[in-house]
Amino acid sequence: MKHTILSTAVALVSGIAIQSAALAAADEPIQPIKPPASINIGMVELGKKLYFDPRLSKSGIMSCNTCHNLSMGGTDNIPTSVGDKWQQGPINAPTVLNSSLNLAQFWDGRAADLKAQAGGPIANPGEMAFTHTLAINVLESIPAYVREFKLVFGKDKIDIDQVTTAIAEFEKTLVTPNSRFDQWLLGNKTALTKDEQEGYKLFKDSGCVACHNGEAVGGNSFQKMGVVAPYKGNMPDGRAAVTGKDEDRFNYKVPTLRNVEMTYPYFHDGAANTLTEAVDVMGRLQLGKKFTKDENAKIVAFLKTLTGDQPTFMLPILPPSSDSTPRPTPFK
Amino acid sequence: MKHTILSTAVALVSGIAIQSAALAAADEPIQPIKPPASINIGMVELGKKLYFDPRLSKSGIMSCNTCHNLSMGGTDNIPTSVGDKWQQGPINAPTVLNSSLNLAQFWDGRAADLKAQAGGPIANPGEMAFTHTLAINVLESIPAYVREFKLVFGKDKIDIDQVTTAIAEFEKTLVTPNSRFDQWLLGNKTALTKDEQEGYKLFKDSGCVACHNGEAVGGNSFQKMGVVAPYKGNMPDGRAAVTGKDEDRFNYKVPTLRNVEMTYPYFHDGAANTLTEAVDVMGRLQLGKKFTKDENAKIVAFLKTLTGDQPTFMLPILPPSSDSTPRPTPFK
Repeated sequence: MKHTILSTAVALVSGIAIQSAALAAADEPIQPIKPPASINIGMVELGKKLYFDPRLSKSGIMSCNTCHNLSMGGTDNIPTSVGDKWQQGPINAPTVLNSSLNLAQFWDGRAADLKAQAGGPIANPGEMAFTHTLAINVLESIPAYVREFKLVFGKDKIDIDQVTTAIAEFEKTLVTPNSRFDQWLLGNKTALTKDEQEGYKLFKDSGCVACHNGEAVGGNSFQKMGVVAPYKGNMPDGRAAVTGKDEDRFNYKVPTLRNVEMTYPYFHDGAANTLTEAVDVMGRLQLGKKFTKDENAKIVAFLKTLTGDQPTFMLPILPPSSDSTPRPTPFK
Repeated sequence: MKHTILSTAVALVSGIAIQSAALAAADEPIQPIKPPASINIGMVELGKKLYFDPRLSKSGIMSCNTCHNLSMGGTDNIPTSVGDKWQQGPINAPTVLNSSLNLAQFWDGRAADLKAQAGGPIANPGEMAFTHTLAINVLESIPAYVREFKLVFGKDKIDIDQVTTAIAEFEKTLVTPNSRFDQWLLGNKTALTKDEQEGYKLFKDSGCVACHNGEAVGGNSFQKMGVVAPYKGNMPDGRAAVTGKDEDRFNYKVPTLRNVEMTYPYFHDGAANTLTEAVDVMGRLQLGKKFTKDENAKIVAFLKTLTGDQPTFMLPILPPSSDSTPRPTPFK
């Protein structure tokens, strides 16, 4: 259930074996997750510190990891997140796991990539409630950060571009290969039980794979929530807020189903607590299909085989503030 | 700057060498931190998960690590902590590092030991705002926890006593040996600069060691805040709230100075942002002594040599909730 950068490197070395096995799975709509390539390790280590550093928030207590908790599937497991001064977030925090595989970031895809996403929550008044300028002032006041940024980026000044680049590089490592389903795709035919295989067949035959496909089992298209029947939950504009097009209303990025057992509650409003409920709603609203109890259970059993090796690493130790570091203001 | 349980074990094996070196430092008022003995590793691993698990809070987003952040010296680096619904805490969160060496827990010593402390914040309405019963309901609903508790404690039911025992066992591992000061105590005479050694001499000669002594450089007595002159900050009753004795008013547990460079801001109300300020206030109020700028700087230089190896370990991966797990209620 665990992988490290070292084991990722080992997997890369044995890339030829993976490649030929992947060919065997080429006719499946879901592909095995590949370990990340071309990772800058120094940048990853810096980005990991930043990801865990609550000094990038106004209050001094919220980091990327607060809402995208890497102990809990890269999310916070509540319907919508808690922001600065306990503000209620408008939408469910998507998992950071395998987010490098998304066609764009956020439910409405308003950020083109991880780097563009990373700066958003820092400066969002409802989330970390800071500004990029203040965040840079904090980092510039911490000697060990100044040195590490210089080592990684070779520049004399830290800027927000470096901060988001480093965080994105760390996030690129947060993939979850080696799920039981991927083992099955790669040729280990005993990796799935009979029920799980039947669940996968139902998942394909019922049409779930039309949107939930590819390496991330989702994340690669925007789709309307409520195709056959309207969704009863909270409905922000979604993709239309980005494109301005009326036909994109209620279109959201299809969430990845990788590690879905860990990323409850489900949907953009986090209204579904269980996979059983989520599968039922999706079947009725998206496919016009009422799954029987047995079918539902088999699909859920299949979905639980998508839990991969969670990224594990040493908890980073953050460099202490200096006398000149601006102090957080949690209660102002 | 890092140690693991493995390196602790290695240190234990070479215990004879440590013992003889410790004799050389026996005439100093500060003693080297010793690695923990008699640790139950299985219990530590369980306790580590619980320490990081926000499902022990009403909101589902606060864990022990929220206010005692092991990336940041075992504290939250703000004057007083943020509790459930953004309530402002009444007192500075003390570091969890080396807290096993304290004569009692909390600033007023109201908990006899780590185990007695661990249950407090979970059920404190201003902190994690949960109840022990609800916390146990959550844990009992998570199959992987049920199995792990049974493995560690050999019982069929999880109870709060097991929870706090496991958290305390993990906390016993959070010691920080091998600071430069300890290296110096143990015979490496080049481990400290001339200024740092002079700072230590000033620390002893001025009387700081009267309270800040022993393995933790504090933590082993209750003392009045404001011996020579009254403290101007916020002054809760302190020890008197526990003993009911008037002479214990404004008495607080002397904080450890281990890793003090990382545990800012200082004092029970977190009012002092820098070590320079803290040393100045302590000199004037506790010792009736106004340190010169040069003396202050040397004492601060000495204090920074007390930063030891920070406990490092793999970020724990928490077992997912089940369909029957009661969901957190952050906004109710």
